Amino acid sequence: MAKRLGSGTLLLENSPSVLSFGAVGTKKEGEGPLGNALDRLWEDSMLGEDTWEKAECRLQKEAVGIALEKGGFTPEDLHFIFAGDLLNQCISSTYSIRDLGVPFVGLFGACSTMAEGLAMASLFVEGGFGERAAAATSSHFCSAERQFRFPLEYGGQRTPTSQWTVTGSGAAIVGKGKQPPFVRGVTIGRMKDMGITDANNMGAAMAPAASDTIARFFRDTGKQPEDFDLIATGDLGQVGSTLLLELLAGEGISIAGQHNDCGLMIYDRERQQVEAGGSGCGCSATVLCSHILPELRQGALRNVLFIATGALMSPTAVQQGESIPGIAHLVWLSGEPGPGGGQAG
Amino acid sequence: MAKRLGSGTLLLENSPSVLSFGAVGTKKEGEGPLGNALDRLWEDSMLGEDTWEKAECRLQKEAVGIALEKGGFTPEDLHFIFAGDLLNQCISSTYSIRDLGVPFVGLFGACSTMAEGLAMASLFVEGGFGERAAAATSSHFCSAERQFRFPLEYGGQRTPTSQWTVTGSGAAIVGKGKQPPFVRGVTIGRMKDMGITDANNMGAAMAPAASDTIARFFRDTGKQPEDFDLIATGDLGQVGSTLLLELLAGEGISIAGQHNDCGLMIYDRERQQVEAGGSGCGCSATVLCSHILPELRQGALRNVLFIATGALMSPTAVQQGESIPGIAHLVWLSGEPGPGGGQAG
Repeated sequence: MAKRLGSGTLLLENSPSVLSFGAVGTKKEGEGPLGNALDRLWEDSMLGEDTWEKAECRLQKEAVGIALEKGGFTPEDLHFIFAGDLLNQCISSTYSIRDLGVPFVGLFGACSTMAEGLAMASLFVEGGFGERAAAATSSHFCSAERQFRFPLEYGGQRTPTSQWTVTGSGAAIVGKGKQPPFVRGVTIGRMKDMGITDANNMGAAMAPAASDTIARFFRDTGKQPEDFDLIATGDLGQVGSTLLLELLAGEGISIAGQHNDCGLMIYDRERQQVEAGGSGCGCSATVLCSHILPELRQGALRNVLFIATGALMSPTAVQQGESIPGIAHLVWLSGEPGPGGGQAG
Repeated sequence: MAKRLGSGTLLLENSPSVLSFGAVGTKKEGEGPLGNALDRLWEDSMLGEDTWEKAECRLQKEAVGIALEKGGFTPEDLHFIFAGDLLNQCISSTYSIRDLGVPFVGLFGACSTMAEGLAMASLFVEGGFGERAAAATSSHFCSAERQFRFPLEYGGQRTPTSQWTVTGSGAAIVGKGKQPPFVRGVTIGRMKDMGITDANNMGAAMAPAASDTIARFFRDTGKQPEDFDLIATGDLGQVGSTLLLELLAGEGISIAGQHNDCGLMIYDRERQQVEAGGSGCGCSATVLCSHILPELRQGALRNVLFIATGALMSPTAVQQGESIPGIAHLVWLSGEPGPGGGQAG
C-alpha cells in the first residue's frame, strides 16, 4: 500500500524495484563524465534519420528497447508505459512507442518527465494496477533549440545562463522484484512561478519548484538531508543549483553536502562549452539510467532523492507576456526496500 | 483494490464517486442541444482576455472553480490534479492550475485527455494515494485552428470531414462517496495508426484506437454492449463514428444501439455548420460534465462507457510525412458502486 503523508508525498511500502533501465546519447554526451556509462552512443546527432525530430524519436525507441532487452522483457511484459517529452504534442514519445502495443499514458512535464513517469509507473505497480510499468523520455539539442529558441542556422549567441539540451534518452522498467534499487517514495510537484520570463534562464525558473518539492518531502517524511548520499536535481544547471541552495537555506534546510545536479554531471562545463550545464528531459533521464540506478544496484549509492525539474515554458505564452512556471517531481530510490517490499517478481 | 483484467483494463472495486463537476462554454456551445446544461456561458469567445490562449486558460480555470464550488471544496481538498490540453506545452492547463497549489500531474493525450485524467484521478483514489483528485481539460476553436491548421484570418475553406473544436472546458472531482456516479472501471488506450495524414480528418485517425479500446474492454470484462445505456465516444464526429461501427462490426461487436459521440451531441449539425461535428479536448469534457455525469447522478442513465478519443497530431510530424496515431481511453461510469464501493467520503 502507498501511504499518503500529506501535500503530495506518498510512501511506497511495497517498494517496487527498478528492474531494468537503458540510456543512450550522442557524441557530446559520450565525451562527458558519464560517456562510458551510456548503453549506446551515436557519432552523428541525426542517427541516420532525415530530421532532428525523427532522430530524437529514434533515441527514445532505442532506450526503451535497451531497457526491455537488458531485463529480458518483451513489450507484452509491460502493462503500462508512461512517457512524454519536450516536443510539441510529445512526438518523440508518440512515434517511438506507437508500435509497441502497450497501454500508454501520455505525460507532459517538460524536463520533469522522467521523475513524473517513474513516479506514476511505481505507483501503478504499488497499487497493483500492473505487474510492470515503464517510464521513458528524451530530448535533442537541435529539435529543442528550433522549437523553443532560435533555428540553429541563425547562429545566435548563447548567454551564460543558457543550458545545453542533452541529446539522449532514458527508460526504466518498474515491477515487483528483490533486486535494488527500490522506489520508496514520491512527492508530486506543485507549480511554482517566480516571474522568470527569460527562455535562456530555465534554471532560475525551475529552482523554486525544486525547493518546494524537496522541502515538502523532508517535512512530510521527517527525514534529513543526511539520510541521503545523493540529492540529484534534474537540470537546474549552475545558476539554478545556486538558487536552490539559497531557497532551501531560507527554509532552514541545507543540502549542500548531498546535492548535485544532472545538468552538472552529464557534461564537463570546463571542457564542453555548455554554459550553465545540461538540460532537457534527456538530461535527468540519461543520468538516472546510466549512473544513479546502476550505482544503487551495485550498492555504491544507498539512498538517493531524484528530483527532475521542468520549466513549463511555451514560446506562445512567453510572447504573450507570461512568466514560466516550474515544476519538480521527486522519487526516493533506495538500496533497501520498505517494510512490505522486496517481493519476488 | 483495482483488479487488473489484462490488456489495460482495471476494475475499480471500491468505485470512487465523481463528487462534483463543472462545464463551461461560449455562445456556440450555448446554442447547441446541451446549451442549458452548461454551468456558464460567455457571449464572446475572448472572455474579456486579450488572446485566445488566455481565453482558453480562463475557461479551464472557471470549470475547475465551478467543480470546486459545487462540491463545497477548496483547492486544499484536492490531493492531486491531472490536466492537459491541446495547446503546445499544455499552457491552458499550466496557467489555469498554476495558482491552486495542488500537486499536479501534467498529461498529454490530445482529445483523449478527459478520460485519461478521469482514469488517473479515479485510480489514485482507488489506490488510496489521495482522498480526492481532479481531472480537467479544455479547448478553444481559435487557438486550435491557429496552432494545428490555418490562422483564422486566412479564411480557409473547411472540408466536409473537418470538425469544429469546442470552445469549452470540463472538470471533475473524484473521491470516496456514496452518491452516484461511480467509476467502476477503466481501459487505458494503446496507440493505433492506420496511416491517416489529413489534419482535417481526425475522426478517421481516432476510430481505430476507439475500436481497439472498446473491444478490449468487452473482451476483458465479458460485458456486452446491452449492459450499457450509453457508449459515448469523445469526438469522432460523423465520419469517425461510422468508421468505428464498421471496425467493431468486424470484431463481431455491435454498439449501434448504444453509441453516440460527444461531437454529435454538443452541436446541432443541421443548424450549426460544424461539418462532421464537434471535437477538441473540451468536446468530451463538456458533454461528460454537463450531460453524462448529471444524468448518471439523477438515475436517467445507469451504465455508461465514456471513451475520449485523441488524435496525437503534430503539424511538424505531418509535415515530415508521418501519419497521425490515435488513442482512446475508456472510463466505465455507473449508477451503482462495485462490490467494495459506495464508501462514505
